[in-house]
Amino acid sequence: MIDLRSDTLTKPTPGMLAAMAAAPVGDDVYGEDPTVNALEAKVATFFGHEAAVFFPTGTMANQVAIRTHCEPGDEILIESTSHIVLWEAGGVAVHSGATCRPIDGTHGLLTAAQLEGKLRPDDMHSVRTRLVSLENTHNRGGGTIYPLETVAAISAWARSNGLAMHLDGARLWNAIVASGVSGPEWGRHFDTIMVAFSKGLGAPVGSALVGSTDLMRKARRLRKLFGGAMRQVGYLAAACIHGMDHHLDRLADDHANARLLADAVGSVPGFTLTPADVRTNMVWFEVDPRHGSAQAVVAKLREQNVRASALDGQTIRMCTHLDVGREECERAAQVIRRIR
Amino acid sequence: MIDLRSDTLTKPTPGMLAAMAAAPVGDDVYGEDPTVNALEAKVATFFGHEAAVFFPTGTMANQVAIRTHCEPGDEILIESTSHIVLWEAGGVAVHSGATCRPIDGTHGLLTAAQLEGKLRPDDMHSVRTRLVSLENTHNRGGGTIYPLETVAAISAWARSNGLAMHLDGARLWNAIVASGVSGPEWGRHFDTIMVAFSKGLGAPVGSALVGSTDLMRKARRLRKLFGGAMRQVGYLAAACIHGMDHHLDRLADDHANARLLADAVGSVPGFTLTPADVRTNMVWFEVDPRHGSAQAVVAKLREQNVRASALDGQTIRMCTHLDVGREECERAAQVIRRIR
Amino acid sequence: MIDLRSDTLTKPTPGMLAAMAAAPVGDDVYGEDPTVNALEAKVATFFGHEAAVFFPTGTMANQVAIRTHCEPGDEILIESTSHIVLWEAGGVAVHSGATCRPIDGTHGLLTAAQLEGKLRPDDMHSVRTRLVSLENTHNRGGGTIYPLETVAAISAWARSNGLAMHLDGARLWNAIVASGVSGPEWGRHFDTIMVAFSKGLGAPVGSALVGSTDLMRKARRLRKLFGGAMRQVGYLAAACIHGMDHHLDRLADDHANARLLADAVGSVPGFTLTPADVRTNMVWFEVDPRHGSAQAVVAKLREQNVRASALDGQTIRMCTHLDVGREECERAAQVIRRIR
Amino acid sequence: MIDLRSDTLTKPTPGMLAAMAAAPVGDDVYGEDPTVNALEAKVATFFGHEAAVFFPTGTMANQVAIRTHCEPGDEILIESTSHIVLWEAGGVAVHSGATCRPIDGTHGLLTAAQLEGKLRPDDMHSVRTRLVSLENTHNRGGGTIYPLETVAAISAWARSNGLAMHLDGARLWNAIVASGVSGPEWGRHFDTIMVAFSKGLGAPVGSALVGSTDLMRKARRLRKLFGGAMRQVGYLAAACIHGMDHHLDRLADDHANARLLADAVGSVPGFTLTPADVRTNMVWFEVDPRHGSAQAVVAKLREQNVRASALDGQTIRMCTHLDVGREECERAAQVIRRIR
Repeated sequence: MIDLRSDTLTKPTPGMLAAMAAAPVGDDVYGEDPTVNALEAKVATFFGHEAAVFFPTGTMANQVAIRTHCEPGDEILIESTSHIVLWEAGGVAVHSGATCRPIDGTHGLLTAAQLEGKLRPDDMHSVRTRLVSLENTHNRGGGTIYPLETVAAISAWARSNGLAMHLDGARLWNAIVASGVSGPEWGRHFDTIMVAFSKGLGAPVGSALVGSTDLMRKARRLRKLFGGAMRQVGYLAAACIHGMDHHLDRLADDHANARLLADAVGSVPGFTLTPADVRTNMVWFEVDPRHGSAQAVVAKLREQNVRASALDGQTIRMCTHLDVGREECERAAQVIRRIR
Repeated sequence: MIDLRSDTLTKPTPGMLAAMAAAPVGDDVYGEDPTVNALEAKVATFFGHEAAVFFPTGTMANQVAIRTHCEPGDEILIESTSHIVLWEAGGVAVHSGATCRPIDGTHGLLTAAQLEGKLRPDDMHSVRTRLVSLENTHNRGGGTIYPLETVAAISAWARSNGLAMHLDGARLWNAIVASGVSGPEWGRHFDTIMVAFSKGLGAPVGSALVGSTDLMRKARRLRKLFGGAMRQVGYLAAACIHGMDHHLDRLADDHANARLLADAVGSVPGFTLTPADVRTNMVWFEVDPRHGSAQAVVAKLREQNVRASALDGQTIRMCTHLDVGREECERAAQVIRRIR
Repeated sequence: MIDLRSDTLTKPTPGMLAAMAAAPVGDDVYGEDPTVNALEAKVATFFGHEAAVFFPTGTMANQVAIRTHCEPGDEILIESTSHIVLWEAGGVAVHSGATCRPIDGTHGLLTAAQLEGKLRPDDMHSVRTRLVSLENTHNRGGGTIYPLETVAAISAWARSNGLAMHLDGARLWNAIVASGVSGPEWGRHFDTIMVAFSKGLGAPVGSALVGSTDLMRKARRLRKLFGGAMRQVGYLAAACIHGMDHHLDRLADDHANARLLADAVGSVPGFTLTPADVRTNMVWFEVDPRHGSAQAVVAKLREQNVRASALDGQTIRMCTHLDVGREECERAAQVIRRIR
Repeated sequence: MIDLRSDTLTKPTPGMLAAMAAAPVGDDVYGEDPTVNALEAKVATFFGHEAAVFFPTGTMANQVAIRTHCEPGDEILIESTSHIVLWEAGGVAVHSGATCRPIDGTHGLLTAAQLEGKLRPDDMHSVRTRLVSLENTHNRGGGTIYPLETVAAISAWARSNGLAMHLDGARLWNAIVASGVSGPEWGRHFDTIMVAFSKGLGAPVGSALVGSTDLMRKARRLRKLFGGAMRQVGYLAAACIHGMDHHLDRLADDHANARLLADAVGSVPGFTLTPADVRTNMVWFEVDPRHGSAQAVVAKLREQNVRASALDGQTIRMCTHLDVGREECERAAQVIRRIR
């Protein structure tokens, strides 16, 4: 079975498992897990920020980041199809009492021009605009990458208006590899960045939030409140360190494999890539009703040992990742090309 | 000064004041205010519902209604420029932990077709779609009226999908008079309806929520929680009853006056009515930059004793109401026509 | 019927009604109600604070005050039988995400010594202690009055520990009259004070929150969020002003009447005053089971045209107020004395 | 260093590490981690419940359990020194909008008699009493064990009053071993039970919530909302299974070791065991000021390679666990006996 449903499906390599088993650990609630501490220092440095906090999931790291920036009654400017909007169970309202103001982007990407005029007036009838939250790469947008200058323009606009900047960087690693823009170059435009280790980097579990020492102190308290403060969790952190050290550059392979799949998808009449230009590890496409529903197409693929995800009625997603090699993607591409 | 900023500005007529002064009252927290009880019965009957609860404001009645329908993590389908979205201070997230899913309507009005496909999947990543909330007449949309058949179609769709229906009817009275559609005809499509007495009906303060006995029991508890359970408030309820009895039919005058103003606005080059077709007591228009900002136009009008509201950069709203008569509107229209 | 259930039951005197009818009003959401503005200035001055905000109820004013001081996750030190703990529907948790730490007082009153050691450690496992909230007079405690020096000691302790001070002064008027301690003398020990006009002062509806300009700006925004921002509400504010001007000193009569009732209660075998010493307008007592339940005693009184409130199984409350005069209290006392 | 600060400090044994490394894993968000699924089935069966959900921490499992039972505005009857009250950062108010009603127990334990009369009246002024939450063994109470008949009496009272029952069983394993009462015997008195694997059982991370299929479906959704849904987390679950299989019976050793330490503590003039009777793995004691503060005593112990936890001013806690053997406890006991 060639499983392209998600890049969260990867299992640790032998090297990663060995790193996990060898990790020195301690009680992280007491701040005594050396491997967690090493990971936090490493990821903060990677993005040129002061500090980081390890989290069980990216969802918790995103939601805690929002709580560090917002009070109940605040508003977040965010693209309509962001993970935070679609797939975090309405957490912004539940955990922060804050409102998302969804703005339709182009394949998930906003521009500074789109934010102009989106500040709520300083009036007791209104929410208080407080935060801009971007996602890079953008999952639902098709694994799309923000141009650095767009991020810089949005950040400049936000900061000149007193707004904080958060980045959902669950797949920022992919953006870094595909764009050649470094961690600190992205990092300086944001107050907080969430990165996930359990996707392209292949770790079984784990995300981190990076930011200033003050914000991370607040985040660490909130992590406790959310029930995310674990004990000898260095085993997981060791996998994350291993992923950063060994699986970052190889994301280029995932991207090449995704283009291979995209070519196959693009060759099938009635399949439309969205966007056409696949730059990272995601292939999103719409299926014309002549093929039946997305669910039907996914079922056909599965019969031939290729798994993909059906979303909505007519939308399919495929992800490349550490556990599917070139050869498997070539086989998957052949299967796709034969779909009728 | 001819004050067209809002229909909330009205002061009681002598008849209304007399009714207030003569009202029998009691402690409404004990359920012993006969005038409040009479108003609640009267308004419930008016809309063909079982029960009603009196509220200090429409905002509280709307927010409590949402709480009766939603749990934290639920989602509301609602037009983007609704009062609940724009002008209730983000209360949906704060009070209910719920998320608004804003949908762009045409002058504030949605169609059943726009709701198709808007149900979130039954999946732990998603909010749970729970409620459709409409506004009629729609303030920011331009005082627009829902066609009854649109409401019926939306309601049928909502109910077939297990969703509740709420109506922000702050100005439902205007819709009733302008459309000829009765209270119960509107009423049967909704589980809860908020109506305000402090706008077109001319009462100084007060709104009500109507619905089933069960929902209203829940609403009454929530009103206490929100701090909206007042004591000898029959003085205000008496004004509301008087408004229903004496000021409902005369809303037709406000509507005619609004058309008079709209004609004047429409005659000014660079002023664009939105919508062009004024059917109730609101005149919304955009001012072309040749006139400067909305604020500048409002200042010019004020110099000539006409007050209007500036919203955003280029948008102006005028409302007709009980305290501006035909003759005053004619004078205001003359002032408007002379704007250059 | 001599109704001693609550001092909220009063109906306006002819003078108060005349003041209401004569009040100049405007739209208070626009800040244009001159009577509301006058009341807010008057009450702020009365307590030596910078500003005040008018509220529909004391519950809302209390809950908003707590929101101005607390963030989600904060803790409030408060007496166990306070109105905020017992009778505001759990609003502290709902509206502020804050925790009440109930401390058992003596007839509702705390001492500074009881607060020692009650600060939570600065640790991510703990809530953050943030606020001390007192109630004066204390309703459930028996209408008891804080000694000024106790308040001063508590306030000094709180402020030296960085905590804010709130006063639920629903019946602070009674404390002022009974103790001779002035508004500013109480006022300087608190950051926010809620006072109610609908109890001893005899207004039909209304409370106010007083505090600094900054806190009141925040409170005004929160009042809108809670749905407490009313329109031409000067009619109610006029009654409140009238109450302050004409019904403050006469609270001494209510207190004398309460002592009259207390003497009667104290004379009945099996009735125990709590506390024995009645200083304001409340008479609380426990009924021995030989009399049956509190409910049974209340029913007996009612048969003889005296109404009282039964709480819990064996507890009864009587309140004196503007609508029961000396002669009525003497009759009620006779009825009480005859209870067997 | 003999580290007695907490039983959370244990590191996996070689056997546990081997079980972790050998665990089959999958993406648990997709329900595809066989080791997590096996653990959930195993723990549900152990307590005679239908289903279980794995959690990163006991705090999250407790907080989610409370959310499955309570709506905003509900109240929980709970002992004053419970973990949920003291050490979960005020989460009950933040996450559930619910209120804890703390009741002082005897060494953390409540009786059914103490709950009598604690139901709030069905009245809109009141919170709604909804849940009884117990803790067994009780950490702050001194590792105390509930008599099964007390639990049965509380549960009978709760259920006859329509209340749900939750158990914080972070150290229920210790209670089982020390009392000989089995999982299902405890289990049938509760609707939800949280158990932790990262304490006495020696797993690095992990807790579970058990309950009915319906409640666990709700809990699984809430776990996602809280950000507790991890990916290939079977590595951690494997350690939990290993702990259940190999480290349950040996808790008797921890208990014997704790008694050894308790005897030493009891022999020191100015040290007072609370309670005197140590039955599980915790030794709590008060230090008389002649010894200085708890902090000072802890520092003295540390100089001699024994670590303990100081709480409050004069309170010390020691925990025995998998990583301190008999011989180490004997040495620690000697150190303690020499404290002056």
